[in-house]
Amino acid sequence: MTHSTSPEAVPAESAPTASYFQRHIFFCTNERQNGEACCAQRDALAAFERCKLQIKAAALSGPGQVRVSKAGCLDRCTAGPVAVVYPEAVWYSYVDASDIDEIVESHLKNGQVVERLLTPAYLGR
Amino acid sequence: MTHSTSPEAVPAESAPTASYFQRHIFFCTNERQNGEACCAQRDALAAFERCKLQIKAAALSGPGQVRVSKAGCLDRCTAGPVAVVYPEAVWYSYVDASDIDEIVESHLKNGQVVERLLTPAYLGR
Repeated sequence: MTHSTSPEAVPAESAPTASYFQRHIFFCTNERQNGEACCAQRDALAAFERCKLQIKAAALSGPGQVRVSKAGCLDRCTAGPVAVVYPEAVWYSYVDASDIDEIVESHLKNGQVVERLLTPAYLGR
Repeated sequence: MTHSTSPEAVPAESAPTASYFQRHIFFCTNERQNGEACCAQRDALAAFERCKLQIKAAALSGPGQVRVSKAGCLDRCTAGPVAVVYPEAVWYSYVDASDIDEIVESHLKNGQVVERLLTPAYLGR
C-alpha cells in the first residue's frame, strides 16, 4: 500500500459502494452503571444472540451476506433497546423475541424494512 | 405506531436515506479467549478512546454528525485491528495513534477516505 497524502484522498461518497457485508446489524448491548436506562437491562444480549443464531442457521453469515455484531452505546437510549442495520442506516426499537424474528425474516433475509418497529426519528439519548 | 404487516413493508433500498448519524464508526474491541489474534490485543480500546475524545473535542458528536462506538467481533480478524465507517461501509486497518488521527481529520471531519489505511478487500476472518 502506498502512503498517499490528502491530495490523493477519495471523497467518501465516491468510494466503492459494495459493502463487505450486504447488511450489518449492530445491537446495542451497553450497560450503564449509573442506574439510567440502558439496552442491557432490556434483554439486548438475548436479542443479539437470537438474531445471530437465526442468521447462522439460515447460512446467511459471511462476506456479501449478513453480519450480526454487538455494539457499545449507540446513543439512542430513550428508544432502547435499539439495533441499527447498515449500510441502510435503518434503526429499530424492538420489544420481544418475535420482533427479532420479524427483523430477521423481513429485513435481514428479504430486504423489507419492518415499519412498525422503526425507531422514531426524534428519539435520541 | 401501527402494526403493519408485510404487504406494507418498504424495501430497504427505498427507505429514507438520511442517516441518524452522518458517520458512524465502529471499532472492533473484541477479545478472543482462545489465544487467536484479536483486535483487543492490538490496542483497539485505546484507538476507540482516542477517536471518541477527538470527535468530542471537535464538537462533532451527536445526531447528524459523528458517532464513535465499540463493537464486538467484526469478523475481519486477519486485517485487525479494524474499524468500519457506516453508512459508507469504508473499512480501515490501522496501526498506531497517528492512523487514528488521520482517519478523524480526513474522513470523519472532512469526508475524505484515507486510502492508505483501507482494509484490503480479500482480508476477512
